[in-house]
Amino acid sequence: MLGRVLNTHQQWLCRRLADLGYVVTRQVAVPDTAHDIEPAIRIALAHADLVITTGGLGPTSDDLTRELIAQLLGKKLHRNDAVLAQIKNYFASRNRPMPERTAVEALVPEGAIVLPNPHGTAPGLAIEVKPNPFRTGQKTSWLIMLPGPPRELRPMFDDFVVRILRREFPLEAAFVCRTLRTGGMGESIVQEKIEAPLRALVAAGLEIGYCARIGQVDVRLSAQGANAQTTVDAAGKIVREQLGEHIFGTGDDLLEGVVVRLLTERKQTLALAESCTGGCIAHRVTNVPGASAVFPGGFVTYSNETKQKFLGVRAETLAQHGAVSEAVAREMAEGARKQTSADFAIAVTGIAGPTGGTPDKPVGTVFIALASSRGTEVWKMLNPWERETFKEVTAQQALDRLRLMLQKLCKTP
Amino acid sequence: MLGRVLNTHQQWLCRRLADLGYVVTRQVAVPDTAHDIEPAIRIALAHADLVITTGGLGPTSDDLTRELIAQLLGKKLHRNDAVLAQIKNYFASRNRPMPERTAVEALVPEGAIVLPNPHGTAPGLAIEVKPNPFRTGQKTSWLIMLPGPPRELRPMFDDFVVRILRREFPLEAAFVCRTLRTGGMGESIVQEKIEAPLRALVAAGLEIGYCARIGQVDVRLSAQGANAQTTVDAAGKIVREQLGEHIFGTGDDLLEGVVVRLLTERKQTLALAESCTGGCIAHRVTNVPGASAVFPGGFVTYSNETKQKFLGVRAETLAQHGAVSEAVAREMAEGARKQTSADFAIAVTGIAGPTGGTPDKPVGTVFIALASSRGTEVWKMLNPWERETFKEVTAQQALDRLRLMLQKLCKTP
Repeated sequence: MLGRVLNTHQQWLCRRLADLGYVVTRQVAVPDTAHDIEPAIRIALAHADLVITTGGLGPTSDDLTRELIAQLLGKKLHRNDAVLAQIKNYFASRNRPMPERTAVEALVPEGAIVLPNPHGTAPGLAIEVKPNPFRTGQKTSWLIMLPGPPRELRPMFDDFVVRILRREFPLEAAFVCRTLRTGGMGESIVQEKIEAPLRALVAAGLEIGYCARIGQVDVRLSAQGANAQTTVDAAGKIVREQLGEHIFGTGDDLLEGVVVRLLTERKQTLALAESCTGGCIAHRVTNVPGASAVFPGGFVTYSNETKQKFLGVRAETLAQHGAVSEAVAREMAEGARKQTSADFAIAVTGIAGPTGGTPDKPVGTVFIALASSRGTEVWKMLNPWERETFKEVTAQQALDRLRLMLQKLCKTP
Repeated sequence: MLGRVLNTHQQWLCRRLADLGYVVTRQVAVPDTAHDIEPAIRIALAHADLVITTGGLGPTSDDLTRELIAQLLGKKLHRNDAVLAQIKNYFASRNRPMPERTAVEALVPEGAIVLPNPHGTAPGLAIEVKPNPFRTGQKTSWLIMLPGPPRELRPMFDDFVVRILRREFPLEAAFVCRTLRTGGMGESIVQEKIEAPLRALVAAGLEIGYCARIGQVDVRLSAQGANAQTTVDAAGKIVREQLGEHIFGTGDDLLEGVVVRLLTERKQTLALAESCTGGCIAHRVTNVPGASAVFPGGFVTYSNETKQKFLGVRAETLAQHGAVSEAVAREMAEGARKQTSADFAIAVTGIAGPTGGTPDKPVGTVFIALASSRGTEVWKMLNPWERETFKEVTAQQALDRLRLMLQKLCKTP
């Protein structure tokens, strides 16, 4: 609440729940004080079938969630020896002494289900609030407490919470949801292309959602009821027909993940020569586990000297065309490919800004080159965004060019 | 609420308000339906002196905020001709026709203050709710509606909302706040070092906040009252004495920004040789405007071959010590420095995981080398986090080593 941390739980949990077919109707954040936490939980329990809390399960003095909720529901906290043993084991296996205060994490409200935490010490807790004293007619609610760190919360939700939701809140009718991820088109163009062809299915209950990201638009197709699967399948087929090669993946696929997978399948390799993206493409590619099998290495050549020395860009080319030019992009890509013996090389050179633009080449101008055994192609783009967005958009465009080429190669015998 | 968009308003507004001395006690997000928006506003007005809403002021059918709030407060909406003229002008100056529906953005609830929007079309609105029918004793509240797009909301807050807050909610006493950013120490160690020395000032009203980030801990010192400035100054002095060189900046300083600034001041340059961080350090350095003056370039050498070919790492060194070793880190840094003629070179080699660990060198093992005219130093670290966190933590540690060296050099004549 001091604005020091970005709340990513809301997005992550809302998305997971929406994809499972559940509707989130309120998200609340409050400071770490009993005075603020208690009414927030009381109001939530008064209105919802399911309440999920995040954070406040740790050992420090501002971790109040477990105790406040036990108090609010009139449930005693008991030490759970199995949980305590797991916490002790967590520290022992890391050769670290267990701080005494951590023992509070083994306290479990009576009747609560313990959700194991293989990535941390505090387990999650799930309580069936029955009867629920805060709700009209004392209608039952479920209250699930999850730890705050994303790397603990996320697997716990996927591995344990989903199971409880499926059992306790079975959907009245089948719910089917599919997300298709596209690149290379703006949101309005995507919508224009698929809106009319999908009209009949929308009338039959299909829901379409769009989400514009950096250099990427997600199309979410969902339906509920007996024909949900058929409806979503038919919609997916139409969207694939309309958008074709612009679709690069489904669900949570990332473009860099798709590229690494395609290269791995083909046993081929990629080299990079980055000027204006400054390592952003390499960073994204190496975020993918297993990237080392397809990515021998890359160059970040910010100066003219490093472009010449590392990549063999010729002084004449730089003098004649300037560092931001089709000719330099081409020589960078070909140089990187030659230096690394990689099957493919991507090169980017452009003007990230905020300064350095000219009337001829304004801030945002960028050349993307892709070299392979079939020759080198170069594209000129204009990405007039602020520096960091410019880098992300350009990286996305460059990876998408390679993805398109790899998919075409996969189809050609 | 479908998790397609990350809510960054919460962090931005909370931080601005906290730094101005105001305490945010609740943040709520609801879907775009009257059924959810109305009670959220009613509950907020029942509890707070100030309620800020974001979004829902646009022209489409799911933009309901303006109308719902006018209804809830029993205020009529009138077309404001000055606002309408501004909206028309916005489109005219861009040579675009004004969509008819946009005219709704010129509707203003009676008595509301219009907050101009130079970056978009929908103005903000500020209403003094007096008497406030939802609050005990009908105590007055202010309700401020801001547009959703960050590039419209943020300048509007800074340029117009702050003025209203200062006038309507004068702080009873001066409020002073300062953030010091530290690297190289965990949150509990930072706290341990400064807690006792600050005790007397805390008794006199100093507030201390900690925020643990990736490889970084922020210490926020604040005080209110006649002696606020003296208290925070004294606290800052003590924290600087206790944490010394661990403090790398203040406010919103980023480590990469500090490094680029120090290099720029000294007219010196940096080269990078990244294995396990895969371009993450280069990406961060090149996010800083002006980086090109101090960063000629870098290498991402994921394979043994590229380590040898680009950086001159010897085959014997790789065979004898393995790619993840002090000796290889040293040769990488020295090779990168030689290749680029840079004043400094950072090299990192380690095991990012999830696979590739051995009992000797578990996942998370990393060697960081820093080469300069004074020789080469190498540090061994263990960062057993998942892949992306591993890369960020390692990048932070590497940049911090350089920052420490640069600060020492600045002090030595």
